[in-house]
Amino acid sequence: SGLVHIKNPHLDAMEEDVLYHLDLGTKTHNLPAMFGDIKFVCVGGSPNRMRAFAQFMHKELGLPGDGEDLADICAGTDRYAMYRAGPVLSISHGMGIPSISIMLHELIKLLHHAKCRDVTIIRIGTSGGLGIEAGSVVITDTAVDSSFKPQFEQVVLDDVVVRSTELDKDLAEELLSCSKEVPDFPTLIGHTMCTYDFYEGQGRLDGALCSFSSEKKLKYLKRAYDAGVRNIEMESTAFAALCGLCGLKGESSCSRFC
Amino acid sequence: SGLVHIKNPHLDAMEEDVLYHLDLGTKTHNLPAMFGDIKFVCVGGSPNRMRAFAQFMHKELGLPGDGEDLADICAGTDRYAMYRAGPVLSISHGMGIPSISIMLHELIKLLHHAKCRDVTIIRIGTSGGLGIEAGSVVITDTAVDSSFKPQFEQVVLDDVVVRSTELDKDLAEELLSCSKEVPDFPTLIGHTMCTYDFYEGQGRLDGALCSFSSEKKLKYLKRAYDAGVRNIEMESTAFAALCGLCGLKGESSCSRFC
Repeated sequence: SGLVHIKNPHLDAMEEDVLYHLDLGTKTHNLPAMFGDIKFVCVGGSPNRMRAFAQFMHKELGLPGDGEDLADICAGTDRYAMYRAGPVLSISHGMGIPSISIMLHELIKLLHHAKCRDVTIIRIGTSGGLGIEAGSVVITDTAVDSSFKPQFEQVVLDDVVVRSTELDKDLAEELLSCSKEVPDFPTLIGHTMCTYDFYEGQGRLDGALCSFSSEKKLKYLKRAYDAGVRNIEMESTAFAALCGLCGLKGESSCSRFC
Repeated sequence: SGLVHIKNPHLDAMEEDVLYHLDLGTKTHNLPAMFGDIKFVCVGGSPNRMRAFAQFMHKELGLPGDGEDLADICAGTDRYAMYRAGPVLSISHGMGIPSISIMLHELIKLLHHAKCRDVTIIRIGTSGGLGIEAGSVVITDTAVDSSFKPQFEQVVLDDVVVRSTELDKDLAEELLSCSKEVPDFPTLIGHTMCTYDFYEGQGRLDGALCSFSSEKKLKYLKRAYDAGVRNIEMESTAFAALCGLCGLKGESSCSRFC
């Protein structure tokens, strides 16, 4: 049917659903009228960049006005920022798995309540590249954890549930084709490694704590490269797992920024 | 000596230290002049609330002006917001362990470069209370993980390192004494449970996914209460582990908001 799947038997019995961190709700807002025609959702860490992206899409789609005064749909909260340009929703998710997870739970319920159909979601945040040309865009085929496994360990109460982190292969190929139409736009498909930590978890030597040598760091990154990892960030496994379970066609396509 | 400890042998050899997510650096800013007299750092999730807290401190300390126009010291980035009022620094950390960890690594290096002494750091964010009066403030004695263990598992490259999450007991008692001077300010000392997930991790029945019954949720929360947990949030174990390792006198004191 193309609808978003909610896998929560309790939700139907609720009189009202407050999407707390988005400052939206089923009683306070007419979600089908506001969002029913959304077909694409793009997410990234920084609120300013997601506003800039919505302004860019506004211009690309030839929508009326210059798009400079797009309103933040989540203006009542500073947890996340949300903008729309035609059928495209642009939302910030902060940094790290816990932060993107809160946003995705509420976004998925939003798309469900709004009765959206055939929605494609793409993470367009930044990442660190691994053995690739500076400025390249990596389109993720599979998100892997810090042991290079294609899985996401979700703690449910105090149980650990292992979830798949595969992304939509057709969508990855489609994005790769699109990139070929743009001159000087180095793009490749590869695995994306997702870590819980930016400094000690990604082999950085410049954190407040660092217990490993430069050699040990390089060996680890070499092993990651050999396992197919082409970039490193902090959200893709949770993104892939949640979108996959809820029937959202998902893709993570991160530009390398360092 | 009261100085902040950096546990990274690589740092001294670096010509410049860019605190990327704070938009500060050792070559671009005179950190000792800007921050050398800081004695207290208060951190919380929301940028707006941390600005409001700095404005409140500005008034409480009787500093000149009304404090309404405090500048965001990290204005060049939207990752975090930072304000100061006299010797008090007020910084946002976003939501979740990965987000607060990035901020703390860079904050600890900032305090080190600025040669700050005897700094006390307090997390003053929100949390969900467990079996306590609405509106209570919980002062954390020990942060525990979702299995109620007083530990933080840090992934370093692909190794897991287990770190202690004890907080400063004297500081907890001192904060409790202060609270008694304020009328109608219900405050208690207890364990704080830190989870990686807001919905499935904290027993909420209203996420996009929920695989447990209301009974199973209540049993889990009862077990948490019996283990001494009085509130639940998403940053305290990483906060306690990092501050403890770097010699910062740390405390987490969260107001219950639901």
